Amino acid sequence: MRIIVDGMGGDHAPLQILKGCEQAVRELGVQITVTGPEPALREVMRSEGIDPSGIDIADAPDVISMEDDPLSVVKDKKNSSMGLALRMLSGGEGDALVSAGNSGALLAGGTLVLRRIKGVKRAAFAPVMPTAEGHVMIIDSGATVDCRPEFMAQYGVMGSAYMKRIFGLQSPRVGLANNGSEECKGTQLYVEAHKLLKADGRINFVGNVEGRGIMLGDCDVLVADGFTGNLILKTLEGMGSFLIKELKGMFYANLLTKLAALMLSSKLKPFKKKADYKEIGGAVLLGLTAPVIKAHGSSDARALKNAVRQAAAMARADITADIARAMAPSEEA
Amino acid sequence: MRIIVDGMGGDHAPLQILKGCEQAVRELGVQITVTGPEPALREVMRSEGIDPSGIDIADAPDVISMEDDPLSVVKDKKNSSMGLALRMLSGGEGDALVSAGNSGALLAGGTLVLRRIKGVKRAAFAPVMPTAEGHVMIIDSGATVDCRPEFMAQYGVMGSAYMKRIFGLQSPRVGLANNGSEECKGTQLYVEAHKLLKADGRINFVGNVEGRGIMLGDCDVLVADGFTGNLILKTLEGMGSFLIKELKGMFYANLLTKLAALMLSSKLKPFKKKADYKEIGGAVLLGLTAPVIKAHGSSDARALKNAVRQAAAMARADITADIARAMAPSEEA
Repeated sequence: MRIIVDGMGGDHAPLQILKGCEQAVRELGVQITVTGPEPALREVMRSEGIDPSGIDIADAPDVISMEDDPLSVVKDKKNSSMGLALRMLSGGEGDALVSAGNSGALLAGGTLVLRRIKGVKRAAFAPVMPTAEGHVMIIDSGATVDCRPEFMAQYGVMGSAYMKRIFGLQSPRVGLANNGSEECKGTQLYVEAHKLLKADGRINFVGNVEGRGIMLGDCDVLVADGFTGNLILKTLEGMGSFLIKELKGMFYANLLTKLAALMLSSKLKPFKKKADYKEIGGAVLLGLTAPVIKAHGSSDARALKNAVRQAAAMARADITADIARAMAPSEEA
Repeated sequence: MRIIVDGMGGDHAPLQILKGCEQAVRELGVQITVTGPEPALREVMRSEGIDPSGIDIADAPDVISMEDDPLSVVKDKKNSSMGLALRMLSGGEGDALVSAGNSGALLAGGTLVLRRIKGVKRAAFAPVMPTAEGHVMIIDSGATVDCRPEFMAQYGVMGSAYMKRIFGLQSPRVGLANNGSEECKGTQLYVEAHKLLKADGRINFVGNVEGRGIMLGDCDVLVADGFTGNLILKTLEGMGSFLIKELKGMFYANLLTKLAALMLSSKLKPFKKKADYKEIGGAVLLGLTAPVIKAHGSSDARALKNAVRQAAAMARADITADIARAMAPSEEA
């Protein structure tokens, strides 16, 4: 198993990316190819004492910034760390790709270089969050803002395929984000999406899911348009960060509360895991012909390693083939 | 100051409503008129030992349920607790209204009986949440699902008027919910709303606010369409409930953790306040000719009392007149 990692993507690249790669090789037993300007990457590895075993470097001198046009990855910055990573994945030189770089560039480049699975109308960002009962995938969380009902129906099918294989759910419950539980609720887009999801025999559609139900575990796959899904995801992240911060303030208030925090320490870690989005690793980019994981822009080494784990699991389970099979009959129909 | 309270609205009516009224009279020094079937209300007050001083009852034998058509409040169920409450407020028999009943009925009935302030295109539900830095109003959180840019521009103006008076902010920061900070981000609706808000000299528009920024305090008024605003609000509520539940599980794990919880107890209360939506009281219904507060459907006595406090503050500050003044020039233009 070889994972291609965009060495220059993210706020803490390349140091945290390289450290994450070192951890991934050691703990997960994968091989890594890191893309980026080779001399700079080698120098960081040397000066930081990062063990190079299991890590290949593929030279890509250009760098895509957050300000660059997403399409630069396939145009004037083909030799960027992300552009090369995509071309290598497309050429079969690795099993999956991880990037903490510009989401728009990854989506545009992924769609143009790797292409969508036959029948898939739009690729979607699909992060998975821990809930009270298990996990929920939010699909789409920002790839397509101007959405159509038929895209959303496909999100349900793709998300279902992922949750089946990766979380071992027999029949993942697919819900539609909405402002009420009745079928008639929501904008025209959502009323139409509801009809399509309900009629789709490939999935276990459980109907509309309100905001309150998302973290309480009302569904395993939450379908939304990219605009709404992005706001839901980031609102969850922000609320989690906010409460963690408030909690910290509470624990550091005085000696007594610090002692209490110490007494709770073994329990605090799993709690923090559920509230802190940094634990999650990355968002899958579903619908492309090969596995791509978008790691959080602020990823540190541990987050990057978790994203590599996720990428390897997705490649191993061959989710791409599952989605291709699921899409084939609907194309014939 | 007299507040009219819908005695039959909400999951815990009429008992918790009546208890909340008793608390409001005692603690806030307001007069209350409770609407509902008089014999039943009197019987509950007698058997539960609720002090009737300061509480008038206005007889309304019909009851609106969550299943009723919202328009029934002005049609076949005119003599419901909500219908009578709205007519009494319209007739000047009270200064503000509180209801924990059906939101759709309150919106439809409020719009038809009280009418909108001249120039206001749509009334909006506008709850206020505590944030890291202060408070944020989410407007609209569900009144109008099929929204237009010009409604959203007015939400900014109405929300601003409220936050100025009630929270004493000189120049409330108005933000637009969005999936990115750049002006071009979001659906067509949001791109257009951005332009209108930016051009509006009556408000202090700070641009787009992403999901992560909402609870971190990036703005004082968050403008959204009713569909998106509802999902944001309920997602926040759900995440809060979820983390409070996880926290409780952590504290009740064993003797040591229970002791730790005891040591933290003075700090836990304000923390819970920030995470628990039940503390908030109610959502203002902004844009009508008189103050209306929609208390949460699951309101207990304390939540109802908080909603009465909010209603009294809104009546005292005469927000309605502020909004009328703000709307007048734009009508002439």
